[in-house]
Amino acid sequence: MKRLLLVCLIVVTAFASFAQDSIRFTSAASLMMIGKAKPTDSIFQRIDSVETKDMPKAVQALAKNSAGIAILFETNSTIIRAKWKLESEKFYSNMPPISHSGLDLYCLKNGKWQYVMVGKPAKGTADQDQVIIQNMDSSMKQFMLYLPLYNTVNDLQIGVQENAEIRKPAQPGINTTKRVVMYGSSILQGASASRPGMAYPAILQRKTGYDVINLGFSGNAKMEIELAQYLASVPADLYILDCIPNPSPEQIKERSYNFIKYLRQQKPNVPIILIETVFRENGNWDQKVGKTVSGQLEEIRKTYDRLKKEGIDNFYYLTTDKLIGNDHEATIDGVHLTDLGFSRMADAVLPLIRKAMKK
Amino acid sequence: MKRLLLVCLIVVTAFASFAQDSIRFTSAASLMMIGKAKPTDSIFQRIDSVETKDMPKAVQALAKNSAGIAILFETNSTIIRAKWKLESEKFYSNMPPISHSGLDLYCLKNGKWQYVMVGKPAKGTADQDQVIIQNMDSSMKQFMLYLPLYNTVNDLQIGVQENAEIRKPAQPGINTTKRVVMYGSSILQGASASRPGMAYPAILQRKTGYDVINLGFSGNAKMEIELAQYLASVPADLYILDCIPNPSPEQIKERSYNFIKYLRQQKPNVPIILIETVFRENGNWDQKVGKTVSGQLEEIRKTYDRLKKEGIDNFYYLTTDKLIGNDHEATIDGVHLTDLGFSRMADAVLPLIRKAMKK
Repeated sequence: MKRLLLVCLIVVTAFASFAQDSIRFTSAASLMMIGKAKPTDSIFQRIDSVETKDMPKAVQALAKNSAGIAILFETNSTIIRAKWKLESEKFYSNMPPISHSGLDLYCLKNGKWQYVMVGKPAKGTADQDQVIIQNMDSSMKQFMLYLPLYNTVNDLQIGVQENAEIRKPAQPGINTTKRVVMYGSSILQGASASRPGMAYPAILQRKTGYDVINLGFSGNAKMEIELAQYLASVPADLYILDCIPNPSPEQIKERSYNFIKYLRQQKPNVPIILIETVFRENGNWDQKVGKTVSGQLEEIRKTYDRLKKEGIDNFYYLTTDKLIGNDHEATIDGVHLTDLGFSRMADAVLPLIRKAMKK
Repeated sequence: MKRLLLVCLIVVTAFASFAQDSIRFTSAASLMMIGKAKPTDSIFQRIDSVETKDMPKAVQALAKNSAGIAILFETNSTIIRAKWKLESEKFYSNMPPISHSGLDLYCLKNGKWQYVMVGKPAKGTADQDQVIIQNMDSSMKQFMLYLPLYNTVNDLQIGVQENAEIRKPAQPGINTTKRVVMYGSSILQGASASRPGMAYPAILQRKTGYDVINLGFSGNAKMEIELAQYLASVPADLYILDCIPNPSPEQIKERSYNFIKYLRQQKPNVPIILIETVFRENGNWDQKVGKTVSGQLEEIRKTYDRLKKEGIDNFYYLTTDKLIGNDHEATIDGVHLTDLGFSRMADAVLPLIRKAMKK
């Protein structure tokens, strides 16, 4: 009798442990997606290929990266696992793989988004499969899962315990009726955040609760009028332009006034925040780099003065000295911000967002 | 005559530009080296193989990494280039290549160390060769070049203009007669700083001007008595122990008291700062991880109480709540600190160093 009980116990334990480890996958596409300018055919990219056809080739490619896109869901599973298919294996000397190709999980706790854990990409495979977190309590929680910053995601499946619930959140922790649309360079796209959630648009998203759309195009935010046309077509309550690092001083001179003017004419009631470029740290030493950045600053200030003289309103301007502190420690490579730089940058932009959105 | 002058001009210009680009390399071994516990046969490693022979295998291997080692030199070259030979190509999902395998250059400006630029490692080669900075003015400056955090460097050559001077600094910006010896885990070794200069021992080195020795051994700072014996053999004005993240609660119970006691007996006049472990961010969610960290904290506190009861003096203790802030944003993967975490960590430790070194 005792022996029978023992056998039963072993079988039950084994089954319980099997049941616990048995994971059911749900397509992220069926959950809630934030950080999207508009719907796209290939759902984990930022701009639809049809809409990028008049944009520069580099922007067309970068628009497929999943920067700023996140999935919201609720589950009571004690484990969260993810399978994600990457377009290609990337190497950036200035980004950890978690940042360019990994996932970043947050949970809503007492009304605030708190970091949980990352999905670490493994080397040498496009098909990633990782347990992100386990051994949690089984209360129902709302999660936000950020997608990779500098890669393209062709599929994403979220795994929970076989018997757990997973669903769109009843009360989303991000208010998608308040939309902040950001256009900019590699810095905006998220280089060099340690993980997707530390790109500064993502920090601002969590701090404001607004839906922040990341339209950062590494090395290619050059203010072509096609981009202004696209931005004007995106539903927005606020535009933030952080696009001075990429164009040459000449391009800023030629394009910036028309770019901003066009956007304002198309969307007269939407406030605009214009951010001067971060002064490249190596520009303090490399006189050629320093001269270029000074030239960029000079040209955008002329545009700003011209717009102010014309009486532009509902327009906010953030100068370079306010962005990343003055200890020269906020970048990885003189240009791209680390989490230290991004948290300073978010602190600098946040008060202007609050002001602009209050109006 | 005019034509002849033109030809002359072209020849002179071409020669000048050739001369400017012509780089002379100097072995870093012939310059000044800091961040070294003691001299070693293979000069860019931290502990000599003869001295690691009684240490665990993993520590033997990690002791060859160049974490914390930096080269000081003066030059009036307008360009600084480096060739460095890496032991192997590394992949860490939680570190950018610049951090694990790159170089990080600072310059002494008005008595402060200011970031200049990094040496970015290229993919697929052990023989790195990069221009770090160019187009500088030609005044004589003092530089500090940090070596990779998580790789082994077999050779390092520093390139300057053919006709420029390069030499050991006459008045080094780091005081090598004040030595802070730090023993710890991956966090101390520098995971996941964005670049070598942002590991927190390096930040502390620049802020204090002391020679800070990085004896961080990723995953393997487990307080074996052999490590205490080695530490006691290293000339030190201050010991900092940040070794609680790696050992199990049981190991802390068994080893920590004896470890600290041994160090104090051997070096009765050298102050000790003991740092509790960072509370792993994922431990706020993964109950198993949380329990382990709580266990580590419980055991090290018992050791601390026992030492205090015995009246240990010249001993400083830093608790977990003081280390990396409370916004949960300071890590890349729940464990390893980003530049944001490291700058907070440095801020937390710095006052204790000042206090301890004043005595």
